[in-house]
Amino acid sequence: VHGSLESLLKDVRSLLERQRVVEALVARQTGPNQEILQTMTHRQHLAEIRTRLTSQHPADIAFVLESLPVEERSLVWSQIWPIKGSTVLLELGEKVRAGIVNSMPRDRLVELLQKIPGDDLPDLAATVPEDVLEEVYATLDSQSQDWLVSSIAYPADSVGALMSQKAVTARPEKTVREVIEDLRARSLPPALDTLYVIDSRHTLLGALSLTQILISNLDSAVRDIQAPATLAFTPHQEALEAVRAFERYDLRSAPVVDERARLLGYVTVDVVMDYARRKSGEEALRLAGLHGEEDLFAPLWASARNRWLWLGLNLVTALVASRVIGMFEQTISRLVALAALMPIVASIGGNTGNQTMALIVRTLATSPLPRSNAMHLLLKELRIALLNGLVWGGIMGILTIILYGSVPLGAVMSLSMTLNLLVAAAVGVLVPLLLDRLGFDPAQGSSVLLTFTTDSMGFLIFLGLASGFLL
Amino acid sequence: VHGSLESLLKDVRSLLERQRVVEALVARQTGPNQEILQTMTHRQHLAEIRTRLTSQHPADIAFVLESLPVEERSLVWSQIWPIKGSTVLLELGEKVRAGIVNSMPRDRLVELLQKIPGDDLPDLAATVPEDVLEEVYATLDSQSQDWLVSSIAYPADSVGALMSQKAVTARPEKTVREVIEDLRARSLPPALDTLYVIDSRHTLLGALSLTQILISNLDSAVRDIQAPATLAFTPHQEALEAVRAFERYDLRSAPVVDERARLLGYVTVDVVMDYARRKSGEEALRLAGLHGEEDLFAPLWASARNRWLWLGLNLVTALVASRVIGMFEQTISRLVALAALMPIVASIGGNTGNQTMALIVRTLATSPLPRSNAMHLLLKELRIALLNGLVWGGIMGILTIILYGSVPLGAVMSLSMTLNLLVAAAVGVLVPLLLDRLGFDPAQGSSVLLTFTTDSMGFLIFLGLASGFLL
Repeated sequence: VHGSLESLLKDVRSLLERQRVVEALVARQTGPNQEILQTMTHRQHLAEIRTRLTSQHPADIAFVLESLPVEERSLVWSQIWPIKGSTVLLELGEKVRAGIVNSMPRDRLVELLQKIPGDDLPDLAATVPEDVLEEVYATLDSQSQDWLVSSIAYPADSVGALMSQKAVTARPEKTVREVIEDLRARSLPPALDTLYVIDSRHTLLGALSLTQILISNLDSAVRDIQAPATLAFTPHQEALEAVRAFERYDLRSAPVVDERARLLGYVTVDVVMDYARRKSGEEALRLAGLHGEEDLFAPLWASARNRWLWLGLNLVTALVASRVIGMFEQTISRLVALAALMPIVASIGGNTGNQTMALIVRTLATSPLPRSNAMHLLLKELRIALLNGLVWGGIMGILTIILYGSVPLGAVMSLSMTLNLLVAAAVGVLVPLLLDRLGFDPAQGSSVLLTFTTDSMGFLIFLGLASGFLL
Repeated sequence: VHGSLESLLKDVRSLLERQRVVEALVARQTGPNQEILQTMTHRQHLAEIRTRLTSQHPADIAFVLESLPVEERSLVWSQIWPIKGSTVLLELGEKVRAGIVNSMPRDRLVELLQKIPGDDLPDLAATVPEDVLEEVYATLDSQSQDWLVSSIAYPADSVGALMSQKAVTARPEKTVREVIEDLRARSLPPALDTLYVIDSRHTLLGALSLTQILISNLDSAVRDIQAPATLAFTPHQEALEAVRAFERYDLRSAPVVDERARLLGYVTVDVVMDYARRKSGEEALRLAGLHGEEDLFAPLWASARNRWLWLGLNLVTALVASRVIGMFEQTISRLVALAALMPIVASIGGNTGNQTMALIVRTLATSPLPRSNAMHLLLKELRIALLNGLVWGGIMGILTIILYGSVPLGAVMSLSMTLNLLVAAAVGVLVPLLLDRLGFDPAQGSSVLLTFTTDSMGFLIFLGLASGFLL
């Protein structure tokens, strides 16, 4: 699969390069032939790119676009969009899509958006300028208009935002034969696996898998062969709950109902999987203090700014830690070995605290953490910290004695490491748990708070003990 | 969904507690009634737990087991396993499963494993003692034996390890009517969506979706309505490639073939999704230097040891950084402000390097990174580092001048920050890329190398510049 993607990208790149060379050559020509030459070579290689790309899967075209610098990206897009624009647009990452949407002339964009099925339009809403969206909205049929309005209203991380409309349904009194006839008469979604059984008021009564239809007698009534719809989501549930349920119960699709159990739509495994992968990717980036995915070819300023909030925060916390050290300048000037040893205490604290935090964030991401287990976790992490403090703090203490020939300095080193490991464990458990309880994302901001505490406390504990016991 | 899981766990917990209280009371009784009392209350609450749990989905039972401390876990397991052991075992996390398997008497374990379908047995192989596995193997039919042997042979992160056997197949010359009759006669996998069309030598010819079967004329031949099998995996492909393809093309299942295009089995979206989620979870933990998932109730020693490799490494790198500072003790003793400022330089480098690294690891996880783009990324990150160095290093320089009243010290601060940001950007890009090119996991070990470099280089640059220009 990937070999072919790489070679596709390579082909496109070399065609772009040839086009560039040819155009540069023609531009240098003068005389009567120039115009003829220009006509002959005009975008010849671009046409080849079009031919090569349009036969590909939209997701692969999107990959090629995302792998190209902005200028070449828009050149390729200009070739692609009249033919496959509507499907490719849906496959693009949000940042790249926004860039492409913004670069298109308004009337072309409207034309393109009108080709996108009403079911998919809400996915694009966030990246399309409001006035353009309004113009497209006006041309939709009333059902698609309702869908667009209600979909946009669901919060980004709700089940509603993942929902597809137009579930394939069946009535309980119909026979299998009638259901099959119905199916033949209508256009079906690409990966249909289940029909939802509803009554005349759209109340969800059960589910009917295609397998069940195939192996049932043609004269059976739907109500006699349907399975109960044991699991249904509501649109305001957190999307993460859907992810957990799809994983836990190996679902392919699941119905979404309103508070009166009326069928609103359904969620499919591909959408849930995309969401889960995007989220876990964002989580990894957020742990490092980034806002989210970044277009590889985003302008320098945009990329730099993505990191500034974190850098600024980091600078503030580093300054505070620095002031803690500043408080002990007298102590350090009398025993300069402290300056060399103090970063070890801070660094060990930061690193083990990060381990603890990663475990907690992970546990929270896969399943709910009962309150009693949270207490258990805290005690356990504290015990591990104590154990590690005694073992590794002890080793470090001995090394300090060997290096500096001072037993009291070694003892202060051991004790400070143990204490800072305890601080790190407590912060590593409590901060993500607290953020989670308060309804925040436990990944967001935990690590800046952690480093702040382990650095400042590490310096404070070590230099404090040193000035108390050694001077 | 989750409310009910939490309350299920709560019920089980309170039943366990009641059982404990009753048994303690009975144990304190003396006299003739003791025996009668014992018989009456014997495991009464445990039986209730059994009733409450066995009606639940195996994945939910697994959740309850994973949320209980080891002793209570085995008490509950003793109630569950004779009824639902084989399905629950498959749903448990690897660490918890290993604990349960090890705690069971050997003959009971063999009895339990014999109930597990041959298709699922390879998933358990890693957690079962070899001699037990051999005993179970001997009781399998020859097809399941072959499957077990060949499945175990596939590497853990290959498509082969995710593969299911017994794909539902159809011959090209059959009619739809015959295919449906076939389907009715056999037992079908839970979420069947596609039949694979094969010839008499098992060569994969195409795919036939259930939807297609349903909407086709009963007299059509399979070969006339089948879709080409455009995407097929081989068992030795990396599992990550399957993850990418399933995401990219929204697949529900895909065939696996050998080098002669003969159908070996198939991969389903639930297995791929589980794998992807497990991997991204492990990635997050590995970035923090942990081996992988940890049983919440694992013994203290096991949990502590999970962190030791990292702690040890961290101690070594911190020691090296500390020796770098040690080289400049003279400098520091003459200008003690350096001791307070130097951690800022190291910390800013470490944090921005981590941002860069997180971006690269993420990019590598979702799609291949063409070589030319890697170069682009490096240059871009260096430019961002330079920009950030000028901006934030400038701010920090001014703060230093204000705090310490020394312009040269401020200049040294700015310059060191800029240089260390450049080091961090280079290491943040190159280390994960290099690890990836060499075939290692880019998440593993990147961050320890990064912190090592940014700390040591941060101290070296800052103190080196300071001793050169300020003294």
